[in-house]
Amino acid sequence: MSADDRPARTRAGGRNARRALRAATDITMLPGLRHALPTCEILQGAQIERIDNASMDILENIGVRFRDAEALRDWRRAGAKVVDEMVYLDRGLVRALIATIPARFTYHARDPEKNVGLGGRQAVFVPMTGAPYLRDLDDIRRTPTLDDLAMFHKLSHMLPAMHSTAHHIVEPYDHPISQRHLRITYSSMKHSDKMFMGMTTSPKNAEDVLDMCAILFGKDFIDTHPVVTGNCNGNSPLVWDETMLGAMRAFCRRNQPVLCSPFVLGGANTPASVPATVAQLNAEALSALAYTQVVRPGCPAIYGHYLSTVSMKSGAPMAGTPEISLMNFMIGQMARFYGVPWRTSNTLGGAKTLDAQAGYESATTLSAVIHAGANYIWHSAGWNEAGMHCSVAKFIVDAEQCAMAYRMAEGPKWDDFDQALEAVSDIGPGGHYLGHPHTQDHFQSAFFMPEMFDNNSIEQWMAEGSTQVTQRALKQARKLLEAYEEPPLDEAVNDALLDYIARREREIPAAEALNNSF
Amino acid sequence: MSADDRPARTRAGGRNARRALRAATDITMLPGLRHALPTCEILQGAQIERIDNASMDILENIGVRFRDAEALRDWRRAGAKVVDEMVYLDRGLVRALIATIPARFTYHARDPEKNVGLGGRQAVFVPMTGAPYLRDLDDIRRTPTLDDLAMFHKLSHMLPAMHSTAHHIVEPYDHPISQRHLRITYSSMKHSDKMFMGMTTSPKNAEDVLDMCAILFGKDFIDTHPVVTGNCNGNSPLVWDETMLGAMRAFCRRNQPVLCSPFVLGGANTPASVPATVAQLNAEALSALAYTQVVRPGCPAIYGHYLSTVSMKSGAPMAGTPEISLMNFMIGQMARFYGVPWRTSNTLGGAKTLDAQAGYESATTLSAVIHAGANYIWHSAGWNEAGMHCSVAKFIVDAEQCAMAYRMAEGPKWDDFDQALEAVSDIGPGGHYLGHPHTQDHFQSAFFMPEMFDNNSIEQWMAEGSTQVTQRALKQARKLLEAYEEPPLDEAVNDALLDYIARREREIPAAEALNNSF
Repeated sequence: MSADDRPARTRAGGRNARRALRAATDITMLPGLRHALPTCEILQGAQIERIDNASMDILENIGVRFRDAEALRDWRRAGAKVVDEMVYLDRGLVRALIATIPARFTYHARDPEKNVGLGGRQAVFVPMTGAPYLRDLDDIRRTPTLDDLAMFHKLSHMLPAMHSTAHHIVEPYDHPISQRHLRITYSSMKHSDKMFMGMTTSPKNAEDVLDMCAILFGKDFIDTHPVVTGNCNGNSPLVWDETMLGAMRAFCRRNQPVLCSPFVLGGANTPASVPATVAQLNAEALSALAYTQVVRPGCPAIYGHYLSTVSMKSGAPMAGTPEISLMNFMIGQMARFYGVPWRTSNTLGGAKTLDAQAGYESATTLSAVIHAGANYIWHSAGWNEAGMHCSVAKFIVDAEQCAMAYRMAEGPKWDDFDQALEAVSDIGPGGHYLGHPHTQDHFQSAFFMPEMFDNNSIEQWMAEGSTQVTQRALKQARKLLEAYEEPPLDEAVNDALLDYIARREREIPAAEALNNSF
Repeated sequence: MSADDRPARTRAGGRNARRALRAATDITMLPGLRHALPTCEILQGAQIERIDNASMDILENIGVRFRDAEALRDWRRAGAKVVDEMVYLDRGLVRALIATIPARFTYHARDPEKNVGLGGRQAVFVPMTGAPYLRDLDDIRRTPTLDDLAMFHKLSHMLPAMHSTAHHIVEPYDHPISQRHLRITYSSMKHSDKMFMGMTTSPKNAEDVLDMCAILFGKDFIDTHPVVTGNCNGNSPLVWDETMLGAMRAFCRRNQPVLCSPFVLGGANTPASVPATVAQLNAEALSALAYTQVVRPGCPAIYGHYLSTVSMKSGAPMAGTPEISLMNFMIGQMARFYGVPWRTSNTLGGAKTLDAQAGYESATTLSAVIHAGANYIWHSAGWNEAGMHCSVAKFIVDAEQCAMAYRMAEGPKWDDFDQALEAVSDIGPGGHYLGHPHTQDHFQSAFFMPEMFDNNSIEQWMAEGSTQVTQRALKQARKLLEAYEEPPLDEAVNDALLDYIARREREIPAAEALNNSF
């Protein structure tokens, strides 16, 4: 046996092993979710109009500050009243503008089998992004690297309920900040063929993302097909700044959807009132949604928000609170009232570890956003510590929770109802069903069996080492990564992406040194 | 200073200290919940009829086994077809019988201020019961005593979202099993003036509970006012046994409500189908509900169930699964269709400690039962390890979660909407609300601030000792118990209760020795 044989055999063995592992764990992406549950409509007709009216009053009389010369020029041209940086939007103008936003559209993924619909009853789960720290495969909290980001993209690729790999799930500190968006985008594109998100850290960065999307999908294709999502945060109350507006324009001009996301800390940058917070947030979202249509009429856009309530004791953002659930129900109704797809945040929480607090917070929010009928369900895996870290363990558990919520949102299955009733007749009083043919045929699809939860007796649990959910999840993460196989990417496209990155890295000064110490 | 002074001064000091502690923690019971959220109606009209029809077919053609001679005589007299132990119930008879069940009624507590409504939109939270172990104030898992039970009754008394002290939250093993129901009932009555539950471990035990209720409230009073709840579990599929039926009769004859609770392990004692499981459970519940009205027409009764799905890998019961949520929505609809108050189970779970699994499971179920519009929300605090232990820490955390769910279920508050909108106008773009008079006036009621969740920065959390939620909750439990003050009980009534217990303990052989080792 030559020395050359060994690596080849090892690789072949690795492939077989990975194949076997994949066979043991289903990594097939769930189709885009179609909500079958009725949405929780807590606003009655008159209350929807009351919120709408209050928001329109805010837009007409208080106005919104657009801190961006080009946006102000655009607004003047569109017929809005502009005084310095203040824009006053007549409700007729707002309604006319948002009327051209598509109520639903299809996201196109690199693998067309993984295209997903958005809007109306259609929804997607998207992982968390933006964490400055991670809790890694050993549950150690540290600063992330590009390899860590790649790991999360691989996990997103393999977890069935995740419909997207998002973008900077964690901040890769081993690459200069000015060039980081290029590597982040490439990592999303390379490690998965699911859809992804695009950086909006500056207008020019957004252009780079879109140029790379044009390379991946074709320039003409993206002009007519949504393939990437940008997020633009507002500065509540009632301010949109230059960076976000510039990035928004970049996405809109290429017909790519942005999330128009007021960043709300209820009680701090909104009034201490649930309905009034919704009215302000709604005005803010509408002002940005309207602006997307000034930039390019008919381009897709998504009603967004980041939403927390603030502890008046400490000023800290809170999650899983009743008011956040209520506002999700209400905002969902408002988005549907305007006929615009709606983004919310999922498994938010302030716990420092994957403890009971994290579980209560995440599950409460997940339930709320499902009952609220949300479409773009962001931050669906990994979020902890108020977004300061992404936890590998929580990523796995949250993704399973999303798969369970998906099942719930599909509603009950009636297809075998009559057969199942025959089983009742067969078994009769006092019997049991485990051996019945109907049970044998249907048990795998009838009742979800969570793998991350231990439901054995305490004796068995202790005999197996008293493992906590964090350990079980990290073991599962290692198993998935072991089985990971990169989806094939056309070599010419890959080269073109790498050429683009190389050119742009020559052009963009690496202004900051590597800032691992951040 | 005489020696006699010292204890008195100590007691006085203790009273003052307790008063101060009580002032710091609001222990005022929340009024009975009135659901303001729309219920999650996942069955459309035809589907409700399909379930109803399937259940009635089961009752007419498959029949229900009543393993109790007296019940069989009753059914014959009521006009049912009875063959051996099998009872076949015509749908007309079932509908006529359940029509006399009150759709809503008021539970009367020892303190009339703590009376609560049940049925329709009215709901109550009731702690878990029946745990053979506890995790105590040091989070040690061990067998419980009467003192432990008293501790849980005291906590139930002080936690605002708990509307009841239930009965044997934990099994007190330091008292003979044959006499235990007397001490359990006395503990519920003595340590709180909230409503409570009554043991149904045998027909005679149920009579003892009801005799003690007659002493506490007056014999005539209880004949016309619900004061106590019994639970009667069915043996799914389609069996009711002698013990449960005898206890049911004891409660019904005194006009006290029972929970008619099929005990369902989905896939094991029901078909592997969500709608067919609901159809079978519904038939079982209806058969018992109908029987309550055979015993005493017009007596209150509650549609109940215990509901788990079973892991087909291990046979273990699971909690927080999507199918349990779906079945809660469906069963809620069926109970409303029949116009009968409805009991479900709340924070079920199989975790061994108060870890993330426990949080996810409990919060998922809590959300589901609120959206399902449940009335008698049992097992609302403390449940863990598939009910094998009641956790003091989880008791505290769950009770806060119930308070949060209560707030959500009340819906948004509109009373200060116009004032809050004026604040938006006052603050304008780019400002902040913390110093605004509206915020100052409303922050305490606007946004719930959970005490058990840490939302501080990780640096502050570490500086404070990196305490997990279990530690925080146990500290809170100790604080509450320190501040506990027994609600006054009329001395003559107390003596009569103690006399009754003493007499019955003379009459009932302490058949078993103390079985601490169980």
